[in-house]
Amino acid sequence: MKRSERLVDMTKYLMERPHTLISLPFFAQRYDAAKSSISEDLAILKHTLATNQDGILETVAGAAGGVRYIPYIGKGHAEEYLGDLASRIEDPNRILPGGFVYLSDVLSNSQDLQWIGRLIATRYAYSDIDVVMTVETKGISLAQSVARYLNVPFVTARKRSKVTEGATVSVNYISSSLDRVAKMELPTRALKKNSNVLVVDDFMKGGGTLTGMEELAREFDSTVAGICVLCEADFDKEKLVEDYLSLVKISKIDTQKRIILAEPGNFLTETDFSQL
Amino acid sequence: MKRSERLVDMTKYLMERPHTLISLPFFAQRYDAAKSSISEDLAILKHTLATNQDGILETVAGAAGGVRYIPYIGKGHAEEYLGDLASRIEDPNRILPGGFVYLSDVLSNSQDLQWIGRLIATRYAYSDIDVVMTVETKGISLAQSVARYLNVPFVTARKRSKVTEGATVSVNYISSSLDRVAKMELPTRALKKNSNVLVVDDFMKGGGTLTGMEELAREFDSTVAGICVLCEADFDKEKLVEDYLSLVKISKIDTQKRIILAEPGNFLTETDFSQL
Repeated sequence: MKRSERLVDMTKYLMERPHTLISLPFFAQRYDAAKSSISEDLAILKHTLATNQDGILETVAGAAGGVRYIPYIGKGHAEEYLGDLASRIEDPNRILPGGFVYLSDVLSNSQDLQWIGRLIATRYAYSDIDVVMTVETKGISLAQSVARYLNVPFVTARKRSKVTEGATVSVNYISSSLDRVAKMELPTRALKKNSNVLVVDDFMKGGGTLTGMEELAREFDSTVAGICVLCEADFDKEKLVEDYLSLVKISKIDTQKRIILAEPGNFLTETDFSQL
Repeated sequence: MKRSERLVDMTKYLMERPHTLISLPFFAQRYDAAKSSISEDLAILKHTLATNQDGILETVAGAAGGVRYIPYIGKGHAEEYLGDLASRIEDPNRILPGGFVYLSDVLSNSQDLQWIGRLIATRYAYSDIDVVMTVETKGISLAQSVARYLNVPFVTARKRSKVTEGATVSVNYISSSLDRVAKMELPTRALKKNSNVLVVDDFMKGGGTLTGMEELAREFDSTVAGICVLCEADFDKEKLVEDYLSLVKISKIDTQKRIILAEPGNFLTETDFSQL
């Protein structure tokens, strides 16, 4: 196979398997090519990704070595996308009764989900995440997208039991939007003990739901490696969690005057993007 | 930029934008290259995808023309994956009380979701789908994955209202697993009138949930272009829907003897895979 064809296939192959170590002999056999040619191919791939600021090809030396494609976005791209997203969120038609914000279009748009997934996967690319956790329903598409780029599974906590998931572990948490103690649960077989968990959700007001997920992780003897939400309502009451990141911060909603103000959240300032 | 670098970037660019027409002048400008060179690049890309039976590069001639990447999997790959999936589903530990089957691990695994999404997107690649519809909760990851490869949005019908989605349209349907009339709804702004809808779901017993989604589509003056489920329980009572596809068919569950039998569903025989 010619270099040009190898490069097309290699790019596709690696993109479909992020964070997975692929050995040089595997590629050499797949393309019936010398290891030295494969090394040159990979150097071209690495250089192209770096130039475009949209991915890292990591080389692991030694007998058990190979290459690993890490989805990773440069700061410039992140600023541009989040600026655009924040301005799209500033649409007064998104204001719903009760100070809620309509975000379902963003959370079900393939292109937005790609961007959001890649951004969050950039931040946690080197955090050894085992699993992404969210709570039903609207966090699911977000969790799936992040999980795809980290190439790990995701788990969905439920606010109601389902008969199709078997035994569960449940915790109580303070639901700030409902102003009461609520319950969420996770099937026992959904999460392995001692996992390193990344918690994501679509919208954060008081942060009560996030504390519920932290508690669930503890019940599974697991660690929370990070908490990241798509939108945070910054005008709202005191937060129940610390140490979270938000992609977009909504600083004001005026239901009467139909005004909503949004800007990129602390994700931008708290991510160093330095691996690229 | 050299051909080799162009090919890496082009492959990535097109894979991130399935079913999207990209004009040749766009690539010519992006790479500061002659249109004839770009045409040669695209021929290499097209040839490599076809050889590997894992994608189509469609060329659209004329002034408004360009190229479009269509995720499309060859029959051999489909048979191999679905055979493997069916055998993984034959694990007696999946049997849950009431004849339900644990599938959450498949529905939250990035690699499985990639395969399943690409398979279903292959079947409907030329059906002009506008939107993928599912019902909460477990169908969501499936819908998202199919939507990603068709590059269309997806909508999630809910069995309970949420205050964060505004006005809704609701329908009644017969829930065969609950043996009662149930209700599902969709936010009015989630689906445009006259859409061509692909309905997907994780598990089908009697098909009642699917009739609910057909009904919802009608309420939005929309057409159902197809119905596709991950698993169908073939041993169960008569089906309420016709004309559906299933990726995997479960022909028997014996809760007492702990036996579950599965095989590839009618998806394989009903898809012609002839575009590759």
